[in-house]
Amino acid sequence: MVAGALVDRRQMQCYALLVHKVAVGVLGASGYTGRELCALVARHPEMELVFAAANEQRGKSARFGGRDVTFVASEDAPLQSTELVFSALPHGASAEWVGRAREAGARVVDLSSDFRPGNPGTSQNGASIPYGLTELSRGVLPDAALVANPGCYPTAVLIALAPLLASGLVLPGATITVNAASGVTGAGFTPRPELMFAQVAEDFRAYAVGNTHRHLAEIKSFAAKLGGDADILFTPHLLPVSRGILATITVPVVRVPDNVLSPWLETYSGEPFVEVVADPPTLRDVVHRNVVRISAVAAAGVRQPTIVVLAALDNLMKGAAGQAVQNANAMLGFPEPAGLPA
Amino acid sequence: MVAGALVDRRQMQCYALLVHKVAVGVLGASGYTGRELCALVARHPEMELVFAAANEQRGKSARFGGRDVTFVASEDAPLQSTELVFSALPHGASAEWVGRAREAGARVVDLSSDFRPGNPGTSQNGASIPYGLTELSRGVLPDAALVANPGCYPTAVLIALAPLLASGLVLPGATITVNAASGVTGAGFTPRPELMFAQVAEDFRAYAVGNTHRHLAEIKSFAAKLGGDADILFTPHLLPVSRGILATITVPVVRVPDNVLSPWLETYSGEPFVEVVADPPTLRDVVHRNVVRISAVAAAGVRQPTIVVLAALDNLMKGAAGQAVQNANAMLGFPEPAGLPA
Amino acid sequence: MVAGALVDRRQMQCYALLVHKVAVGVLGASGYTGRELCALVARHPEMELVFAAANEQRGKSARFGGRDVTFVASEDAPLQSTELVFSALPHGASAEWVGRAREAGARVVDLSSDFRPGNPGTSQNGASIPYGLTELSRGVLPDAALVANPGCYPTAVLIALAPLLASGLVLPGATITVNAASGVTGAGFTPRPELMFAQVAEDFRAYAVGNTHRHLAEIKSFAAKLGGDADILFTPHLLPVSRGILATITVPVVRVPDNVLSPWLETYSGEPFVEVVADPPTLRDVVHRNVVRISAVAAAGVRQPTIVVLAALDNLMKGAAGQAVQNANAMLGFPEPAGLPA
Amino acid sequence: MVAGALVDRRQMQCYALLVHKVAVGVLGASGYTGRELCALVARHPEMELVFAAANEQRGKSARFGGRDVTFVASEDAPLQSTELVFSALPHGASAEWVGRAREAGARVVDLSSDFRPGNPGTSQNGASIPYGLTELSRGVLPDAALVANPGCYPTAVLIALAPLLASGLVLPGATITVNAASGVTGAGFTPRPELMFAQVAEDFRAYAVGNTHRHLAEIKSFAAKLGGDADILFTPHLLPVSRGILATITVPVVRVPDNVLSPWLETYSGEPFVEVVADPPTLRDVVHRNVVRISAVAAAGVRQPTIVVLAALDNLMKGAAGQAVQNANAMLGFPEPAGLPA
Repeated sequence: MVAGALVDRRQMQCYALLVHKVAVGVLGASGYTGRELCALVARHPEMELVFAAANEQRGKSARFGGRDVTFVASEDAPLQSTELVFSALPHGASAEWVGRAREAGARVVDLSSDFRPGNPGTSQNGASIPYGLTELSRGVLPDAALVANPGCYPTAVLIALAPLLASGLVLPGATITVNAASGVTGAGFTPRPELMFAQVAEDFRAYAVGNTHRHLAEIKSFAAKLGGDADILFTPHLLPVSRGILATITVPVVRVPDNVLSPWLETYSGEPFVEVVADPPTLRDVVHRNVVRISAVAAAGVRQPTIVVLAALDNLMKGAAGQAVQNANAMLGFPEPAGLPA
Repeated sequence: MVAGALVDRRQMQCYALLVHKVAVGVLGASGYTGRELCALVARHPEMELVFAAANEQRGKSARFGGRDVTFVASEDAPLQSTELVFSALPHGASAEWVGRAREAGARVVDLSSDFRPGNPGTSQNGASIPYGLTELSRGVLPDAALVANPGCYPTAVLIALAPLLASGLVLPGATITVNAASGVTGAGFTPRPELMFAQVAEDFRAYAVGNTHRHLAEIKSFAAKLGGDADILFTPHLLPVSRGILATITVPVVRVPDNVLSPWLETYSGEPFVEVVADPPTLRDVVHRNVVRISAVAAAGVRQPTIVVLAALDNLMKGAAGQAVQNANAMLGFPEPAGLPA
Repeated sequence: MVAGALVDRRQMQCYALLVHKVAVGVLGASGYTGRELCALVARHPEMELVFAAANEQRGKSARFGGRDVTFVASEDAPLQSTELVFSALPHGASAEWVGRAREAGARVVDLSSDFRPGNPGTSQNGASIPYGLTELSRGVLPDAALVANPGCYPTAVLIALAPLLASGLVLPGATITVNAASGVTGAGFTPRPELMFAQVAEDFRAYAVGNTHRHLAEIKSFAAKLGGDADILFTPHLLPVSRGILATITVPVVRVPDNVLSPWLETYSGEPFVEVVADPPTLRDVVHRNVVRISAVAAAGVRQPTIVVLAALDNLMKGAAGQAVQNANAMLGFPEPAGLPA
Repeated sequence: MVAGALVDRRQMQCYALLVHKVAVGVLGASGYTGRELCALVARHPEMELVFAAANEQRGKSARFGGRDVTFVASEDAPLQSTELVFSALPHGASAEWVGRAREAGARVVDLSSDFRPGNPGTSQNGASIPYGLTELSRGVLPDAALVANPGCYPTAVLIALAPLLASGLVLPGATITVNAASGVTGAGFTPRPELMFAQVAEDFRAYAVGNTHRHLAEIKSFAAKLGGDADILFTPHLLPVSRGILATITVPVVRVPDNVLSPWLETYSGEPFVEVVADPPTLRDVVHRNVVRISAVAAAGVRQPTIVVLAALDNLMKGAAGQAVQNANAMLGFPEPAGLPA
């Protein structure tokens, strides 16, 4: 009884010596998302972290998966010898480096918005670029050279809305009201006065009010492909928490199904990373996990039949780095859960 | 250099030297709202705190306005010699003690829901009981023997919606979507597992999803009096902050006015405790102050004209104790701002 | 490349079918520590969770390691068929159930203080009960039927002090000043007013001031065995965080070694769960990990040579459930890291 | 019913009607301390805020005391027509502007460390500059042209230690251990990665370990004047709260007085801004108030008689802006409490 798992673990280690691991690099490695990516890659059974590029931190090191990794400048990243690159560079700056990585022969998962639907660069050399909402896009991922990884808000909203939009239940011409609240890591790692502890603690605020958030085009473009004929009105809020998004979505429908959860239960049956539950999902349920957790309730006391959908995820995991690894797994032929915390 | 308001304040102080102070008692004095009431009364230039009743804390003392006050049992409260009683007793338990205070001859501001619209006890001896949303109710307050002080969520929602409902701009038959988030003091002082620090910190959750919150009847009943023909769909959330409510309200309208803020600017012109502002209000703007702070924006990119209204208040001040004192001031003929933090 | 780890994982699962897993039960399973224990056992490669007993939660279920577990009453726990029992019952209540589990033939790791040094029940049937500060006690663990798992504060303080106490460097007769700060989960799961979010947030306080903390006897008793002739003055504080302890320890010494870290580097060389580092350890470094992280600095500008030692740990992991599993691993002959998050 | 203090307060108000208000300016007005100063001055019955200078914010406005104030550049501040200037400029940058204000004829309270004991500029034109620990320095304040306002940590530590140091009770040659923890506003308003919400929340850390904090010279210099012959070993910590400092101070003594609190009760009898209490002071007790709250307990179970002193204050109030106004009141002949929140 004693040594069982240990023997097994040694076997795994021996085995790992024999098999080829995929050489993976991370651009923009020192931000919140970049660090999460490095940590996931470093612990991934099929991946090897060959570089972590972060210009401002170059020469400094950080610990990922029990190993010290020294940041290099992007210019010095060995793109030629990398099979897969994750780019967590800022929006606008990422496209150029994605191009360089592609030219060097690497496949790319881009976590910026540069290639997402609703943005200028959604095709490359005439070919449209897959949008990596894994559960809804996985058919095209194995052949993809470049995948646009969805934003954190879009992932929560689109995974939550997809079953309803596809079902024909959404009232034509209606407005879907999305109120979402995000932890501060969603705003990135660059210090700004409004992200300091003393400004965020004990506060709560809406921003981009009136449907003006920069990720709205991404939500609307992909939602249009999913079906229905509804408008989306999106109001984001900043929460005094480090990580997590909760979206509270109000959907006018033509009728409420007998089991209000049935659209989600049917669409996501067997999905390891979408949890459909009876109780309202909370941030605590999802942080540090690569899942979207969804519930839905029919509204009482209103004449227009309406479903309130709740969706929670960790903005750095299923909303960024976790889904990026999930997409990479699909691209590389690994099981989607490989290297991802359940 | 000596300004008008200063002279006014000094006149008020001189006046206070001459007049009899009003004897005021607080029932349910040891909870969050009760303590806030005691603090306000103790510092009020026209009021004297003659008792603070709290059965479980009786014999213990607390410091209000620089003075130690010993809690008494409700049974021992000198109702007979009290001119005005605030009851911060729990819903259900308050009605009986309001009756006793009234029999003893005291006027009462009841902070429970027992006498609010949409609840059973909205009339007493055949007379309807005023609902103390001060800005909208002040005409009937001077003669009132008993005033039902609004709940925290209802205050935020109704002050925010009143100008639109009265304007005729709300789309008939539409659903108004209210997403509100409250700090934990809104849930009261009684220890419960879900209110412990380790459960609340770094979390965010919706509750009473599907339009089932117990204060919804209060909101709907009073909203119906304000005008319009819309339904309300209310989803409350629990925030990891101590105090403050932010309501994000989506209202389908027949048209958006040229100045989207004009309904609020017109309705609340000159009101010291309603702030109509261009930027989104935040909790930081309102905590420890007796104000509702409101903004509104027309939604872009939706076919149905829609206004997003934001309203913030401190749930213990304008949402409870502050408004209760504001109502008491109106009942007693004092200036409404007397004793209230701007 | 594709299926390597997967094959390996399947091999492990097959293997696990063949090997006997140790049947493990948890008493007091619904508190913070109990839940952490259940989660660790459920994911442990050599253990199987055969019961989770929690009287007040009996019949309810919780999810551990991807599996729903229903709490049973302690009376209904199948102690007879359990090889190892963790008791996370409250101090005072645990001893009785530890006795029952022992009578039923199970080996026990007791997380209460009932059998710790400095408490009445430190021997059983004349045999002294090992104190499971694993790094310092592991010699006696393989043969132990019952191990007293250290408290969270004692673990931080004793692991930090042991190398100095054993070195002879501590000034004889001196007072060692220990200021420690703990997150609120250290105070347990039972709701109390002072642990509510609105009381803890934005606050910080000392308690048990003047050397009166109930775990002080445990610290002093074991410290005396480690060597030296110093007194300990311990002042605990409550932090507005969910988990984590930081101890700041001031030790008058006869001389400061050339490398101030050398006592710790030597004592803990090769230890997987003690990290000796140059920079001050923080809570962020240790939460959700089964480690004590230690640093030390010689004080400048004081006549008496003095070393400031800093030690951080997660009170629920290395300070409770993690160390309990580490002890159980040592008792059962498993590698100490089995089932524990690095 | 009309109490003494009330009459006093009204007399003060009447007095204010007759007198000229003092023209006051604030340099460095946009940081945490500068804003707190502007708010205090704006509400002060004897002061008028004639400028608020903040180079980076010039042209922007903020609301203080119910009035919008527009920030000017320091160069444009009307120093000539200002009777008293508060400088909240950064350490190093303040000295020059203090010089300019003095040349223009203004009296100055400098909140930087530039003129504090232990720093280079502690005398001006041969005259030593008073250190404005008001309770201990007020004799020299009325005639002072320039007062160095103490740092937040030094205020807590020195107000707490003064009675013991003066009493002769401190053990000669002993080391006094000061462990202090501060909220993040103590680190200033400039955005830095380590002050972002996601870095500070759920964390706690020591810094400047080993007696290397830049304010230590200030503490030691002034402590030496207070008496005794002890060394001080100071270890600061960063708390996940916005404001407040708690210092836990361990003092070896020759004997413990019968009433351990007697040194503080005697020294601070009648002081409005020092509270000597039996229970451990907490941040909650002091935030937004201009007080130091102190308790002390004799340590049990140690051979060397030792007193544990606890002191709490709001780092922006009694630790900065509040004490600055208290000093200005003493300089200008106003009652010390004028304009300060009790």
